[in-house]
Amino acid sequence: MKTKTLYFGAGWFNDKQNKAYDQAMEALKANPTIDLENSYIPLNNQYKGIRVDEHPEYLHDKEWSTATYKSDLVGIRSTDFMLGVYLPDEEDVGLGMELGYAEGQGKYIMLVIPDEDYGKPINLMSWGVADNIIKMSELKDYNFNQPRFNFYDGAVY
Amino acid sequence: MKTKTLYFGAGWFNDKQNKAYDQAMEALKANPTIDLENSYIPLNNQYKGIRVDEHPEYLHDKEWSTATYKSDLVGIRSTDFMLGVYLPDEEDVGLGMELGYAEGQGKYIMLVIPDEDYGKPINLMSWGVADNIIKMSELKDYNFNQPRFNFYDGAVY
Amino acid sequence: MKTKTLYFGAGWFNDKQNKAYDQAMEALKANPTIDLENSYIPLNNQYKGIRVDEHPEYLHDKEWSTATYKSDLVGIRSTDFMLGVYLPDEEDVGLGMELGYAEGQGKYIMLVIPDEDYGKPINLMSWGVADNIIKMSELKDYNFNQPRFNFYDGAVY
Amino acid sequence: MKTKTLYFGAGWFNDKQNKAYDQAMEALKANPTIDLENSYIPLNNQYKGIRVDEHPEYLHDKEWSTATYKSDLVGIRSTDFMLGVYLPDEEDVGLGMELGYAEGQGKYIMLVIPDEDYGKPINLMSWGVADNIIKMSELKDYNFNQPRFNFYDGAVY
Amino acid sequence: MKTKTLYFGAGWFNDKQNKAYDQAMEALKANPTIDLENSYIPLNNQYKGIRVDEHPEYLHDKEWSTATYKSDLVGIRSTDFMLGVYLPDEEDVGLGMELGYAEGQGKYIMLVIPDEDYGKPINLMSWGVADNIIKMSELKDYNFNQPRFNFYDGAVY
Amino acid sequence: MKTKTLYFGAGWFNDKQNKAYDQAMEALKANPTIDLENSYIPLNNQYKGIRVDEHPEYLHDKEWSTATYKSDLVGIRSTDFMLGVYLPDEEDVGLGMELGYAEGQGKYIMLVIPDEDYGKPINLMSWGVADNIIKMSELKDYNFNQPRFNFYDGAVY
Repeated sequence: MKTKTLYFGAGWFNDKQNKAYDQAMEALKANPTIDLENSYIPLNNQYKGIRVDEHPEYLHDKEWSTATYKSDLVGIRSTDFMLGVYLPDEEDVGLGMELGYAEGQGKYIMLVIPDEDYGKPINLMSWGVADNIIKMSELKDYNFNQPRFNFYDGAVY
Repeated sequence: MKTKTLYFGAGWFNDKQNKAYDQAMEALKANPTIDLENSYIPLNNQYKGIRVDEHPEYLHDKEWSTATYKSDLVGIRSTDFMLGVYLPDEEDVGLGMELGYAEGQGKYIMLVIPDEDYGKPINLMSWGVADNIIKMSELKDYNFNQPRFNFYDGAVY
Repeated sequence: MKTKTLYFGAGWFNDKQNKAYDQAMEALKANPTIDLENSYIPLNNQYKGIRVDEHPEYLHDKEWSTATYKSDLVGIRSTDFMLGVYLPDEEDVGLGMELGYAEGQGKYIMLVIPDEDYGKPINLMSWGVADNIIKMSELKDYNFNQPRFNFYDGAVY
Repeated sequence: MKTKTLYFGAGWFNDKQNKAYDQAMEALKANPTIDLENSYIPLNNQYKGIRVDEHPEYLHDKEWSTATYKSDLVGIRSTDFMLGVYLPDEEDVGLGMELGYAEGQGKYIMLVIPDEDYGKPINLMSWGVADNIIKMSELKDYNFNQPRFNFYDGAVY
Repeated sequence: MKTKTLYFGAGWFNDKQNKAYDQAMEALKANPTIDLENSYIPLNNQYKGIRVDEHPEYLHDKEWSTATYKSDLVGIRSTDFMLGVYLPDEEDVGLGMELGYAEGQGKYIMLVIPDEDYGKPINLMSWGVADNIIKMSELKDYNFNQPRFNFYDGAVY
Repeated sequence: MKTKTLYFGAGWFNDKQNKAYDQAMEALKANPTIDLENSYIPLNNQYKGIRVDEHPEYLHDKEWSTATYKSDLVGIRSTDFMLGVYLPDEEDVGLGMELGYAEGQGKYIMLVIPDEDYGKPINLMSWGVADNIIKMSELKDYNFNQPRFNFYDGAVY
């Protein structure tokens, strides 16, 4: 069976984000149409392995910032599709920009929302840029070899 | 003197956003290189003049959502550059997506930050996509006929 | 007042097309937001002034074909927006390709339909790629300095 | 052996189109470099399985139109190349737009023409956007793992 | 009369380049369709005004390199067209990349060649990416409000 | 193991270029993540098998030039990434344009430099467009299933 690679767009800055991060990872591991080994996971690809949340002395380092930013763009461009782990109550500007960039690169864009949050209102621009928006529990079974469009079965604000 | 049109990327959902929104508008009116009349202001271009925050019955209306979304994309594509009114403490997923989309369209991207917030850490993806990031007090004098790149004089996280 | 240039997408192969062609030209001349002198009109820019319908010996000439094709692409890329004169009963593959190309270039896309044909079903892909579809009688007054999105007030098949 | 997926651009509105549609399908099934299962076939992907030619009550349904249109764009973007089944005597505006869109997405574009029509004059814009134009009888043997450019061995108007 | 801005792609590393650089500048100043004041001239826009040929200690400075590179990209994206001062005997990789980038941004691309070198063989990729290639003596009179395609009247290798 | 295809950007016009050409080819054959059979090698894909350096009568042939140019563009668009064999002392305008074009197509761009030349100053635009720049001796082991960004460990001018 063919497998697809993805850019894993997800935050890691609080408990709720970390929980969704881990759930999505588990689902992707279980999905037979996903090649996780060759996918791009931003947290694992920060420049020189340095996380700025752990090393605040890099907050003003233009070399670190430039390299990490360009790395993430390479990740979006060189993988098959864009996955955004989306929390309606904690929308993230960084993910927003990644979604817009992925659109400019012609990538298929999938958002996944935790089941308990699915249906809640999401930002209009995220709604519009997404090619499909599914529940977390559907992620492990989605056939990424046949990506399709669908409307969000929820609200937009 | 030539003038340039812009897409006005700014939130209107709380007091802090509204204050920055108004300050930026005043500065643009005072800037002789700006053609505000022919610029695109999302709040003034919602489908059929309906604001979903005032008419929650449209939260699930696919026609309203699609038209308002496509309207905003037309706004970005048909103006000369993208302006984002950026609040480091209240970053917005919708603005993030607009920035990424503007990048895909090859637009010059300027972020403006209120003077009192300038220098605070901003999201890496916003930092990277911006061609220039200036203070609110500089906006009225910036020469948009000669747009230039510069690094943010502040932190990134 | 500012003026905008356009790519004039319209056929000239039968009476109905020629009538719509002329009507659209008259409207554009009367529209104060249009710079027709610096717009691109394909019929006036065929390679070496040769029209293949009048000189069928050029039907197999790769130099003529390449130059005329690339000329038209330059016309789309170097003008401000794309105008398609659209006849629901005589849809044209060449205009279709120009619309798709203009979309890829981020141009604002306007279709204009003769009043007597307005509302008739049009092809789904033309419907979707258009940012706005108006009646011929509205063309002379449209403000192209403020291009906006709207749905077609008619059918799609 | 590797296989490639495609967007199947072909009409289904009259006998001649249906005949060419079926011939192309047979050839693709026989071609060992094609992954037809994961290819995108518009007729099989209309929103909610509704065909507007069979359900004319959907002619004015903006939700159906938007979803089917966006679906087709996903099909073009998420497959490896664009195939157009091209009838010189019945050129189609929808296929034209798909070809222009595929060009904007950087896809390889192949046109296939029934043997008995091969050589007939085709529209200049279709001619120019195509990376290669072959006969129907050649389709089953073309190696899509090594897509190449060639000029149409026929006329252009 | 309307005027157009440009990205001035030209080398400044030896006498022959400097001579062509100055000739092109004079012609642009004399051309009434050119807005030179708001055009982008790379030599005048190096980061912090530092020229690496005069300050070799910046050869390894990633901040300087990144900013100057991104500056030039802004110059290409935010001006109306791309001009390349082209010397067939001293072709330049930097100009080559700028031409390819400008193509990706949909810009009109004009090459200008000194009269005494016009007709000499030029690289195939420069030949193909150019929308027009003219003599230096023609530059002051070219109407950039009506940019057009033409083949190079010379050789390609 | 998955394999990736590439566009092989390398010159063949003097001994130094030919040496680097052959070294890169050997490394690619030895790299288990490379599918060389389905990669695009410009020298093997000139129109009708005619090399203009051997057949100078084609120097002015617009059909040959157009077809060979468009062929190379197809090569860049239809393969997975762009490889440039880069000689700091003999930079090439054609490779420069290919790099810029590949950037516009969103491709991952890798430059490889002979070990003995690695670290020498390279042109700013080549430096900026590259996602990674490695030594020739590293090419056979690079994992192209996991393409990553890195800065050049050398100078830029």
